[in-house]
Amino acid sequence: MAQEDTKSVETKAGVSRRQLLGSTASVAAVAGVAGAGGTAALTTLGGPLAGPAEAQTRPAARAGQKAEVHPGELDEYYVFFSSGQTGELRIVGLPSMRELMRVPVFNRCSATGWGQTNESLKVLTEGLLPETREFLAKQGLKTYLNGDLHHPHMSFTDGSYDGRYIFVNDKANTRVARIRCDVMKCDRIIQLPNQHTVHGLRVQKYPRTGYVFANGEDRAPIPNTGEVLDDHKQYHAIFSAIDGDTMKVAWQVMVDGNLDNVDADYQGKYAFATCYNSEEGVTLPEMMANEQDWIVVFNLARIEEAVKKGNFKEMGGVPVIDGRKGSPYTRYIPVSNSPHGINTAPDGIHVVANGKLSPTVTVFDVRRFDDLFDDKIKPRDTVVAEPELGLGPLHTAYDGKGNAYTTLFIDSQVCKWNIDAAKRAYKGEKVNPIIQKLDVHYQPGHNHTSMGQTKEADGKWLISLNKFSKDRYLNVGPLKPENDQLIDISGDRMVIVHDGPSFAEPHDATIVHRSKVNPVHVWQREDPLFADAVKQAAADGVNLMEDTKIVRDGNKVRVYMTSVAPTFSLETFQVQQGDEVTVFVTNLDEIEDLTHGFCIVNYGINMEVGPHATASVTFTADRPGVYWYYCSWFCHAMHMEMKGRMFVEPRNA
Amino acid sequence: MAQEDTKSVETKAGVSRRQLLGSTASVAAVAGVAGAGGTAALTTLGGPLAGPAEAQTRPAARAGQKAEVHPGELDEYYVFFSSGQTGELRIVGLPSMRELMRVPVFNRCSATGWGQTNESLKVLTEGLLPETREFLAKQGLKTYLNGDLHHPHMSFTDGSYDGRYIFVNDKANTRVARIRCDVMKCDRIIQLPNQHTVHGLRVQKYPRTGYVFANGEDRAPIPNTGEVLDDHKQYHAIFSAIDGDTMKVAWQVMVDGNLDNVDADYQGKYAFATCYNSEEGVTLPEMMANEQDWIVVFNLARIEEAVKKGNFKEMGGVPVIDGRKGSPYTRYIPVSNSPHGINTAPDGIHVVANGKLSPTVTVFDVRRFDDLFDDKIKPRDTVVAEPELGLGPLHTAYDGKGNAYTTLFIDSQVCKWNIDAAKRAYKGEKVNPIIQKLDVHYQPGHNHTSMGQTKEADGKWLISLNKFSKDRYLNVGPLKPENDQLIDISGDRMVIVHDGPSFAEPHDATIVHRSKVNPVHVWQREDPLFADAVKQAAADGVNLMEDTKIVRDGNKVRVYMTSVAPTFSLETFQVQQGDEVTVFVTNLDEIEDLTHGFCIVNYGINMEVGPHATASVTFTADRPGVYWYYCSWFCHAMHMEMKGRMFVEPRNA
Repeated sequence: MAQEDTKSVETKAGVSRRQLLGSTASVAAVAGVAGAGGTAALTTLGGPLAGPAEAQTRPAARAGQKAEVHPGELDEYYVFFSSGQTGELRIVGLPSMRELMRVPVFNRCSATGWGQTNESLKVLTEGLLPETREFLAKQGLKTYLNGDLHHPHMSFTDGSYDGRYIFVNDKANTRVARIRCDVMKCDRIIQLPNQHTVHGLRVQKYPRTGYVFANGEDRAPIPNTGEVLDDHKQYHAIFSAIDGDTMKVAWQVMVDGNLDNVDADYQGKYAFATCYNSEEGVTLPEMMANEQDWIVVFNLARIEEAVKKGNFKEMGGVPVIDGRKGSPYTRYIPVSNSPHGINTAPDGIHVVANGKLSPTVTVFDVRRFDDLFDDKIKPRDTVVAEPELGLGPLHTAYDGKGNAYTTLFIDSQVCKWNIDAAKRAYKGEKVNPIIQKLDVHYQPGHNHTSMGQTKEADGKWLISLNKFSKDRYLNVGPLKPENDQLIDISGDRMVIVHDGPSFAEPHDATIVHRSKVNPVHVWQREDPLFADAVKQAAADGVNLMEDTKIVRDGNKVRVYMTSVAPTFSLETFQVQQGDEVTVFVTNLDEIEDLTHGFCIVNYGINMEVGPHATASVTFTADRPGVYWYYCSWFCHAMHMEMKGRMFVEPRNA
Repeated sequence: MAQEDTKSVETKAGVSRRQLLGSTASVAAVAGVAGAGGTAALTTLGGPLAGPAEAQTRPAARAGQKAEVHPGELDEYYVFFSSGQTGELRIVGLPSMRELMRVPVFNRCSATGWGQTNESLKVLTEGLLPETREFLAKQGLKTYLNGDLHHPHMSFTDGSYDGRYIFVNDKANTRVARIRCDVMKCDRIIQLPNQHTVHGLRVQKYPRTGYVFANGEDRAPIPNTGEVLDDHKQYHAIFSAIDGDTMKVAWQVMVDGNLDNVDADYQGKYAFATCYNSEEGVTLPEMMANEQDWIVVFNLARIEEAVKKGNFKEMGGVPVIDGRKGSPYTRYIPVSNSPHGINTAPDGIHVVANGKLSPTVTVFDVRRFDDLFDDKIKPRDTVVAEPELGLGPLHTAYDGKGNAYTTLFIDSQVCKWNIDAAKRAYKGEKVNPIIQKLDVHYQPGHNHTSMGQTKEADGKWLISLNKFSKDRYLNVGPLKPENDQLIDISGDRMVIVHDGPSFAEPHDATIVHRSKVNPVHVWQREDPLFADAVKQAAADGVNLMEDTKIVRDGNKVRVYMTSVAPTFSLETFQVQQGDEVTVFVTNLDEIEDLTHGFCIVNYGINMEVGPHATASVTFTADRPGVYWYYCSWFCHAMHMEMKGRMFVEPRNA
């Protein structure tokens, strides 16, 4: 039985935790490559830990919240998980931590035909930059086949989730996408001009979303045409605000340094981004050289005013405002070397920047930002606390009860601390803000609490997204899963209740109470995602819900069929070799969960057709012969017999 | 809390189970499209059920086996799951039912670069048929971007799993692939000639694997060049035996009817396949017309002898034997209409064919097949039992204690019955072989018991792979997960202990005790999967573990770099626009779980580089400018700083 596992005991015997962590946790390894400046910065990591760590776990059956979800029960929360370099969005149930759905976004999905159907290609291509289209076309591609999806965040209304959209970014190819929560499909993808990669993404919390804020991470020439190559003094970094309703870039701000993560306030006045590499270096030692970097605060009203007045430079078709140091639009607040995450507390007042190379986190009071922009106070006057928590603070989550939970990457711990106590300590009072340190397995990046990024933080659950699983699971070879740990924070002490393996990469997540999300079960015929198919059908005199028809238009052939389990309305259709064939399948089954598929054998064609949806795919019939098509989504007792034949007549027959 | 879920109660209130199942379970819906013959066949479905069903579930914490795996504990079994039209292999831990890893096979994987790296493209392309290469090239493709991975089965030695390989098939594009269990990566993919789709796949159990048996499902012209189109009398179906060591087709057999599923005996003498559509029709009514279809038994010794003697026709480069009715190589045993699964019992004696359109399963005694081939007995004399179990029997699993577990698709149940009792009933004794019927949620296809497909069946766990989840999970929109239910069979009664949501599609699975599998943690430098890169490096005078070098060869540029967290050995490299660039990255980190990635921003390039592995990717540098490359697999506290720049000089600069 698993719990008497000898193998797992052996694995751990005689191996210290630090040995397990290996060089990924080694400060020396960092210093070794960091050069003098980096080493200096890193010596600050030597600070004493505030207290002994605990490795406390509890069988889910015992005291505390119930973490188990029995057969037939529903989870209480949706978790929208990024998948990092896998390029998809994942929907997970909490507390069961079961993956409920994969939503293809930046990836090519064999199951749904995402990246192949006309409906998905429209979403994937319409927002690409012209130079990207040209570049991809030379490789015979319509769109990218990879992405690096980092930060999924739900749209807000009045400080909490409104269940409309999930917004995500692609670090690999500088894109921002939107997923509709009514059908859980991606409906818009845009590529950001001027910016070179987008890392941090968060949304406007008040009055609504509104803006989607996207950090430009890497500095590059603008335009990036090759006239400037090695001369990095001519590189720039860009901060973008996208209109979440139109999915167009509202404006961009040129900044100093490399932007990392971003968040917004609860007043609708400010956005703020951490910045590493204020040195604007291009090598690791250069990037770590300074003892201090900064956070950049963006004044939304001033920027909107400037855009209105035309005080911008149009670049790549969008207004770009110069927000570099000394501008009225931004303020640069010094913090210790290379801050990483930045997180607004549910109290609407406090914002925490996490030190990464400093053992400290820096707490700001957003109410002081007005005075900062009016130059009544100095940048550091906005700081109200700066507790030292441990090695490698990356991200902070909140329970809505005044406590914060910060991931310590190098220490492989989550540190629970009290914001008020940290403020008192900052004022000189002898008080230790640290409440508990909990070992996690291993090396956490992002962490999230239930509803913790909203004013409705409920303090029930914490997920720690750990970058390494090491020995926590059965060995699956050199490539191991990462490890999302579920932690019960409803009591005074944090307790780990579940280990959740995760394929590359559980980069970031958003935990939303199920009361906020209300998807449909069956597609509406008016849905815009397949409106083009409906339009084309109308032009061909076809009612998609009723007609079966083959329309020839030169060497273009449009094949319209319907599906009712277990049959397609067309048992055969014939085309000529070389024809450009478009097959439209409309699923007449309106019963919940009755998805059909359309797959053509040996033709590399497959797509999902949801209940009452229409899907279409276009291909060249370059291969003569008989090709069976079949339903690839199990639908019925006679599913295997749900098939038909495509006849491709040889060109010279 | 989840277990007091009001939403879930509401969902179920006032909705009968049958209503929930809807038309997917409706016999009328089948009959409606089936025509007279089908209707006749289906009236046999009207038979009375042998007993009342139970919907019994148990919180995992209560009596029985422990289904829960606490944090830090390891699972007892590996489950190798197919992913159907997703095209990948999944590794799941049992009893926790957590997905531990995805192994890309027939799909394009954004995370690992599968389908983009030179190493993966070699595996994906070398086994394609020439006409397929030509067809794909016209679309600018090197390989297919989709697959339909149906049946994952581990290699055997002497009747049990040996931990060497997992073999899988692609129904979409007629391929068979092999996954190495030492590194859990796919190392061979071949496309089968003459065959049109491959459905059932199982392996030789004795003396070893040996043969991989692949059923040709659809009937098509051979060769399929377009000379024959609609005339289905000229279509043929093919059964293939692939050599599991060389991954070459050993021989094929031409058969009557459409082959469905397949299995092999424990003596190494026979393979047997179910056949639907003995009518050889091309429409649903035609395919269901006859009251009876058959199973086809293949005599391995006779076939091998014929191949040795040259009694075959070479087609598509492989020996094809005529095994149609009346041949010495096969026997056709009549069974009721459209049998689906066929499963060999661990006792080495009994084989069960599942009725699908008949409420019965047919039990054969393999010891009688010798006499059958010697014409000493009639085909039906090999039948020793034929119990009526319920509506839509699809697959049968075993506990090694004489009991069988059959999925009933239309009834949405698993039926536990006793083989010996069924034999006695067949002889006329008044005994009911049915022990228990358990409701599953909803509509099961394949099912599997722990080690149940081997002589070491241990009777602990049963997984029912259900095609619909309906109301079992939080609503994620029109597309819902399927539902893999874990059932405790260690006691007298079956008890459901876990619902496991599954993205399209949990088609088939193999449950292997962890003692049979022993993967490595770090790649061996001699691994054949990147041997070509080592060879090319040697030709360029490069030692991949030590050297950083850029080699120009006309307009071909080879860039060699190493990675040690958190740096690449090359901070920059420069190429000319239009160069064909190959980047080789060798990961010098040998610590367990320390995978690096290599991603070029806005270039659509990303790949995984495991500990001590080399990975390479080739692309045309068609876009001038500065392009940052970064590590896409989180590796270190300074992971975000692990990057460099590619300079692409404009062609006319």
